[in-house]
Amino acid sequence: MTEYPGLREIPIRDEQVFHGALIDVSHMQVTLPNGRTSLREIVHHPGGAAVVAIDTEGNVTLVRQHRIAPGLITLEIPAGKLNSPQEDPMLAAARELSEETGLVAENLQWLTTMLPTPGYCTERIHLYLATGLTPSAAHPDPDEFVYAVKMPFARALEMVERGELPDGKTALGLLLAYRRLGMDPSPRTNPSDM
Amino acid sequence: MTEYPGLREIPIRDEQVFHGALIDVSHMQVTLPNGRTSLREIVHHPGGAAVVAIDTEGNVTLVRQHRIAPGLITLEIPAGKLNSPQEDPMLAAARELSEETGLVAENLQWLTTMLPTPGYCTERIHLYLATGLTPSAAHPDPDEFVYAVKMPFARALEMVERGELPDGKTALGLLLAYRRLGMDPSPRTNPSDM
Repeated sequence: MTEYPGLREIPIRDEQVFHGALIDVSHMQVTLPNGRTSLREIVHHPGGAAVVAIDTEGNVTLVRQHRIAPGLITLEIPAGKLNSPQEDPMLAAARELSEETGLVAENLQWLTTMLPTPGYCTERIHLYLATGLTPSAAHPDPDEFVYAVKMPFARALEMVERGELPDGKTALGLLLAYRRLGMDPSPRTNPSDM
Repeated sequence: MTEYPGLREIPIRDEQVFHGALIDVSHMQVTLPNGRTSLREIVHHPGGAAVVAIDTEGNVTLVRQHRIAPGLITLEIPAGKLNSPQEDPMLAAARELSEETGLVAENLQWLTTMLPTPGYCTERIHLYLATGLTPSAAHPDPDEFVYAVKMPFARALEMVERGELPDGKTALGLLLAYRRLGMDPSPRTNPSDM
């Protein structure tokens, strides 16, 4: 990593202040580039993997779910947490795609690794493009209620542009998949049809 | 909001279990669609605003900063927290742009409102496209060390495609700005020049 001497914060100590079911929180004291000290509140998360699954007919499969934290019903690309920070994220991506949609992918290619909230959280989400899809039965976790929704990829891109797919990994994954595939999203559906 | 009876979780009670400097955490008991109860661990965050600032020469201004949570030096679009959940996000966007880069924008247009981690966090990040830029002096917070970096928008888009701008709001904001502006990112810079 290139050094930026006027930029780097140096950790002094890091103390866990909350231990949760999903996340932990620590309070890290750091020395700032100006020599002062400051507190950084850090959320520790195991990371996740997510999949843009596009079939040969040009459809993408999203999952509808209730996200009670922001208080919304969302449409998102299939995704889930890593079982541990050491888990191969491509295996996690394949597992979550299969669990939530039943789809098995012949090809998974890395799109990007996204930091959803680098200002305070360790989480990394690994995004993949899945093609060569074979359907089978979905098998979500017992306490997970998600419904697969297949739609034209072009329509999903229009929804991203209108802010109708607010989940960050979903919007970014769809736009990156479009650029990777070079697919023309036209013909555009008529917004009045939505 | 459309009702999806097989999808919705019903809150039973919500108890704050951590009160932090930036975030709070609560444990919400919910009734699942199958009648069972489950715990949802929810991180409460005031939300933020972020700005894709593009000048008439086709340059975008990013800020380089040390993100100690993921342990990386990042290049991100200018951004910051809302002072309160009630603050007008467009005013917050203009403030953060000015503080971190010194740029004052004649035009701010909404790009999207992104949920960076809807699975467990309330945070919404409001993204804007800024044009009609006038430079003045940056004035970051005393404990904030950020350095403005101006680069061709086309080069920033290439960095997104290669996974070199991993911050989620940055990658999504740049791709949405590209689609909004209809700018052609070519001529491509030679990767060996990077």
